[in-house]
Amino acid sequence: MLEEMGKAARAASYQLAELTTQQKNQVLQSIADRLEVESAAILAANAEDVADARHNGMGDALLDRLTLNSQRLKGIADDVRKVCSLADPVGQLIDGGQLDSGLRIERRRVPLGVVGVIYEARPNVTVDVASLCLKTGNAVILRGGKETHRTNAATVKVIQNALLTHGLPAGAVQAIDNPDRALVNELLKLDRYVDMLIPRGGAGLHKLCREHSTIPVITGGIGVCHTYVDPGVDFSDALTVIISAKKQRPSACNSLETLLVHQEIAATFLPLLSQRAADEGITLHADANALALLQRGPAAVSLIQPHEYDDEWLSLDLNVKVVADLAAAVDHIREHGTQHSDAILTRDQQAANRFVNQVDSSAVYVNASTRFTDGGEFGLGAEVAVSTQKLHARGPMGLEALTTYKWIAWGDNTIRA
Amino acid sequence: MLEEMGKAARAASYQLAELTTQQKNQVLQSIADRLEVESAAILAANAEDVADARHNGMGDALLDRLTLNSQRLKGIADDVRKVCSLADPVGQLIDGGQLDSGLRIERRRVPLGVVGVIYEARPNVTVDVASLCLKTGNAVILRGGKETHRTNAATVKVIQNALLTHGLPAGAVQAIDNPDRALVNELLKLDRYVDMLIPRGGAGLHKLCREHSTIPVITGGIGVCHTYVDPGVDFSDALTVIISAKKQRPSACNSLETLLVHQEIAATFLPLLSQRAADEGITLHADANALALLQRGPAAVSLIQPHEYDDEWLSLDLNVKVVADLAAAVDHIREHGTQHSDAILTRDQQAANRFVNQVDSSAVYVNASTRFTDGGEFGLGAEVAVSTQKLHARGPMGLEALTTYKWIAWGDNTIRA
Repeated sequence: MLEEMGKAARAASYQLAELTTQQKNQVLQSIADRLEVESAAILAANAEDVADARHNGMGDALLDRLTLNSQRLKGIADDVRKVCSLADPVGQLIDGGQLDSGLRIERRRVPLGVVGVIYEARPNVTVDVASLCLKTGNAVILRGGKETHRTNAATVKVIQNALLTHGLPAGAVQAIDNPDRALVNELLKLDRYVDMLIPRGGAGLHKLCREHSTIPVITGGIGVCHTYVDPGVDFSDALTVIISAKKQRPSACNSLETLLVHQEIAATFLPLLSQRAADEGITLHADANALALLQRGPAAVSLIQPHEYDDEWLSLDLNVKVVADLAAAVDHIREHGTQHSDAILTRDQQAANRFVNQVDSSAVYVNASTRFTDGGEFGLGAEVAVSTQKLHARGPMGLEALTTYKWIAWGDNTIRA
Repeated sequence: MLEEMGKAARAASYQLAELTTQQKNQVLQSIADRLEVESAAILAANAEDVADARHNGMGDALLDRLTLNSQRLKGIADDVRKVCSLADPVGQLIDGGQLDSGLRIERRRVPLGVVGVIYEARPNVTVDVASLCLKTGNAVILRGGKETHRTNAATVKVIQNALLTHGLPAGAVQAIDNPDRALVNELLKLDRYVDMLIPRGGAGLHKLCREHSTIPVITGGIGVCHTYVDPGVDFSDALTVIISAKKQRPSACNSLETLLVHQEIAATFLPLLSQRAADEGITLHADANALALLQRGPAAVSLIQPHEYDDEWLSLDLNVKVVADLAAAVDHIREHGTQHSDAILTRDQQAANRFVNQVDSSAVYVNASTRFTDGGEFGLGAEVAVSTQKLHARGPMGLEALTTYKWIAWGDNTIRA
């Protein structure tokens, strides 16, 4: 079955690659309109998914994330309309020129071809990913969480109806709506038809893809993010940044997990941190040195377990460690970080430069919250995923990350000497 | 053992990333000088490798490729000196600006970190790859062909001696000099320490890496290259391009394998092709339609076996097929090509544009030989590999392909609203 889907996606990708930006925007506009007009089928499918999930004991927070209503569907349709207004990178001339041989060469952006995306039970991702792929002339094979398979199937049906009215094949956007997990493993081997695979999920999914996929994979989304506090900073300003980086949305991958404090300021800074943490309901997990200083304060604090440096809390928990100096902070980040987002708070320009150069992360911040690592915040207009690997795209991935390039060489019966 | 090498490479990569371009060029200069001054050890090791290979029945062409002498070593040293003169992409500002949030953002080129390269019995590749990696601030783990393991070990020793005199660790350039093949499989799983893996070898090696590596792999180097001949071309010019693309260096991956001829001109063009092929010692493998026309001519010709459309000849053999039109040529290339290099010969600008847009290959040529797909010919100054996949780098890979980027954000205690 997946072989057939792959073939259909590949064939569709050739048609999509030849569309003009205007044609692609017209398709997106139709998809947005139909999501509103044909909402009944999607909402009915979603109600079944929600009922099943409730029956299977899904918690309230996840149930809420799974649930669609007319208003949410309108929001999703509006997001598609926003994609119309983004600049289309396809066709862009990257560089080029005349070569000694007489060839005139151009390097031009082209669609990747076929993109595979594996994600969790978030029905908005289906439309989001499909619209970004169509905007860049890519076909897409979607594999959403099994809890939303009916919603996804109904949503993709609406998208395919819109495609068909524009003379485009349904193969341009397809969903694997059979919840059988074996199909994920089959998808991972479809390198003949799929050019890039994006897993959007937890560490387990990323590991599965890295180990078993024969398709190039973009891994990311796991963020053990650090903030290092250098001597000389204004403590009140530092606390504002730290609390915001932890609390503004603790479940996000770019939220703060571990605070590294220079030993020189530990005795004065940590009591203030304890006060603020207590006020904000943040639980601290401290190394022995920090613990001694934090135990006198009002915040809940316990001795950190070593493995806790390596995991995301994604909750109102914060690791605190006293470090000898900036070099020790960098060493800790190299050892325990996930190359996602790390920050230094400092008044010392040299220290800032050293941190920026030595910390090998997708995003490195000076005097700012780590929470900005996001396609929208970075001005990309959209976000396909956040990559924490180094090939192809790093950090927030915008439309450009859904393209590759082609070398085009024009000659006059030119041959190699 | 590989775990230790990985750790050493990662540690070295941090030091290399902080070197200035001038410092890196000084190291390269020392390496070039030492390759000449300390040539005795390398040549002695090479003599042993050559003696073994001859004893094991290696053919003359391969033996020649394996053999080093003072002159060849000087050539290799001169190539290192040329790498000094290339522009260093590290530190380059890709883009950036002020964001609404108040953050000032920069996207800067940085080294990848640690590169792994698996290659065949070509001793020059060892120095070539090491110098390009050092120039871009990357550590490298080399795994050359087992027939050259003594040569490679001696060469890397010389490079490491040069590194040490500049206060740099030997871990910056390491070779797996144990010829045990199991170590290749171990290398493929070293994703904790290696950021990118480049296999330079045949289809089997690429398949092994794609299926078993947990490190992102750059695949490429396999070229089933096509040239399509449109009606209206000057036959003599077309033959010049075709013969050059086939014959100028048949063993290269960008040499021509399959000629696709429009049916309208087959009856007049193919007899001329047969004459030229006979003159040039080229053997033809033709589909039934072409065979009927070619059998009357002087060139050796046989009916093509279907699988021959999918393999590289790398010899003076050429497939010939008559196609109904440009669309049929594109279909054939999509079905049998390796997305390496494909050309159209035409006088029709619209046909040229259609071919360029519809053929999804790394390099697409209009009225030129496919033999130009090469880092040097494309003006990159160097070539790490030729990628035929779509992520990260496509076609000839220059120094830029050995880098990634980092997002750097400067704030003033900036937090997310």
